[in-house]
Amino acid sequence: MKVQVLYSGGKDSSLAAILLEPFFDVELVTCTFGLERSWENAREAARELGFPFKLVRLGPEIVDESIDVMLKFGYPRPGINLVHRRALETVAVSREAKYLADGTRRDDRAPMLTAPEVRSLEDAHDVRYIRPLAGYGRRAVDDLVARHLVIVEGDTAALAKADYEAEVRSALRARLGDDVYRRIFPPEHTQSRVLRRNRT
Amino acid sequence: MKVQVLYSGGKDSSLAAILLEPFFDVELVTCTFGLERSWENAREAARELGFPFKLVRLGPEIVDESIDVMLKFGYPRPGINLVHRRALETVAVSREAKYLADGTRRDDRAPMLTAPEVRSLEDAHDVRYIRPLAGYGRRAVDDLVARHLVIVEGDTAALAKADYEAEVRSALRARLGDDVYRRIFPPEHTQSRVLRRNRT
Repeated sequence: MKVQVLYSGGKDSSLAAILLEPFFDVELVTCTFGLERSWENAREAARELGFPFKLVRLGPEIVDESIDVMLKFGYPRPGINLVHRRALETVAVSREAKYLADGTRRDDRAPMLTAPEVRSLEDAHDVRYIRPLAGYGRRAVDDLVARHLVIVEGDTAALAKADYEAEVRSALRARLGDDVYRRIFPPEHTQSRVLRRNRT
Repeated sequence: MKVQVLYSGGKDSSLAAILLEPFFDVELVTCTFGLERSWENAREAARELGFPFKLVRLGPEIVDESIDVMLKFGYPRPGINLVHRRALETVAVSREAKYLADGTRRDDRAPMLTAPEVRSLEDAHDVRYIRPLAGYGRRAVDDLVARHLVIVEGDTAALAKADYEAEVRSALRARLGDDVYRRIFPPEHTQSRVLRRNRT
């Protein structure tokens, strides 16, 4: 049973893959608009974890659509949710696996699909969408991450996850300027990137 | 890392235990009011699956409380949610494990804790509550059950899961009669009980 896991190289999507590993043939899938090369960090993390890796290009119209939604609402969450949904749809359309997963957690607010969006994704593409961390709160995730992964945290660009949200942020900033960017986005939080499995 | 999994002997809680097995020391915990002996079926299923088993007695005041809630609302769901929450609290109070889990699924409506109830459970008892199936829809659960478990389905009492909800149903019927019982409860659906692991 093959599952494709949307993968950023961060701790959540890495842990999601590890929780699925005993039960599925896991392939990590990183999506990019091709605007930045941070996906290379995800490829490196996938190699360290020992999972097959695939790069999927998202259509540039998704950037436009996402920026429109962010400007309309004045805050990023609806745009982040949209780009995540489009990423899931893009992977699902390829019909390469019956199962599709991501690293969203119980207490995440974005990215997050609504229940009707989940049904639509599953029915339109005959795929089963799995969220391995949906039943785990922050502390349980932290415990499992500490046990299974070695991560590095900080806020330098060198730690960048493969993050199509970050690509949308950069695109919005380049098109509309710093003022609009800062009005819509809060300051960025600390990055974490997975280095390898914790073998101790 | 020890996790106690609320266990009925049915396919959902059995699958939840199997998904946790590679990452936790699993103990199956069956709750009973002591009104019926269906918990023996859960003990038998636990033995077949090879997990340690523990029986926990729930206080009789929970039956009263649950019946009151069902009569007040006129349908069973709030009472079922209450007895489930009380069962989780009863196990959490013992402080025997840092992690507490159940077999509730993504699309379940009962039993189900609200987000504030989850926070309250976790904070009051310093426990991490895990729902391994929270990110799995019906079809994904069915696929995994078929792969990992041998189940038997039917509607005879011999298949009864260890089901504190069923104990509350019986108690309500005995106290208030068939008419009230049938007004509140829909006809019972087909039971499934786990026989053993699927080794094929």
